[in-house]
Amino acid sequence: MFEMDKRLLEDTVALGDFSLSRVLLMNDSRYPWLILVPRIADASEVFELTVEQQQQFWQETNTVGQVLKAVFQADKINIATLGNVVKQLHMHIVVRMQEDAVWPAPVWGKGTAQPYTVEQLTQIQMRLQNALADDWQTEQKVVS
Amino acid sequence: MFEMDKRLLEDTVALGDFSLSRVLLMNDSRYPWLILVPRIADASEVFELTVEQQQQFWQETNTVGQVLKAVFQADKINIATLGNVVKQLHMHIVVRMQEDAVWPAPVWGKGTAQPYTVEQLTQIQMRLQNALADDWQTEQKVVS
Repeated sequence: MFEMDKRLLEDTVALGDFSLSRVLLMNDSRYPWLILVPRIADASEVFELTVEQQQQFWQETNTVGQVLKAVFQADKINIATLGNVVKQLHMHIVVRMQEDAVWPAPVWGKGTAQPYTVEQLTQIQMRLQNALADDWQTEQKVVS
Repeated sequence: MFEMDKRLLEDTVALGDFSLSRVLLMNDSRYPWLILVPRIADASEVFELTVEQQQQFWQETNTVGQVLKAVFQADKINIATLGNVVKQLHMHIVVRMQEDAVWPAPVWGKGTAQPYTVEQLTQIQMRLQNALADDWQTEQKVVS
């Protein structure tokens, strides 16, 4: 049975479900940063998914990358699946700007997350939910 | 016209070509670490490729991940496309072990690369070229 990893739950806010993945927003206002988690039990590596699931996962990853690039006019999109700490398969998609906190270094393990204020969170959630409106799996939407 | 980024050329050894990507071995003996570079001019983000190229790129990425996991009995495979420094689109696929130099941190920007000796390099090249034997695009093989 699919169950979200506790650490991911603590660090993120759920935006909705794509047909394969749950879409999470990292609660760190330093970078617009989404995480996709395939709703599959016990997957840790991409290649443990079926070929169809892999294709769907990469397609959802690219969709998010493309949307984030456009919405935030990102200088670069960073995409990674690491999982050295949180074993549950998840994909990071991070907006990078040349003036961001740690550019050009990768974001992981650098400094401390700066949680959004409630107002900021409401704003970015709405913005992203609208931008991704075409991609939600309507019947399984987490947040309506 | 496709041309390899100079920094990538300096840091790596070419193993061969898949149907889309050139396969490079990072010259850093701390981790078995491959890099895939689609032989496409001027691509920087995955979603700039055509849909067919994207699917091929992810498939080649998964193939390498799966082979590295098996050959080196990796504890975890780290997959990432960052490109904050080298703009040319490239995918990192890195073998991670719980006892490696920086586990569980990501490998980028940590410590200094430890180049292989000639003997080590010959060995790992042969090992990887054999393990990936089914995937080389024979007519465009870089290293025979």
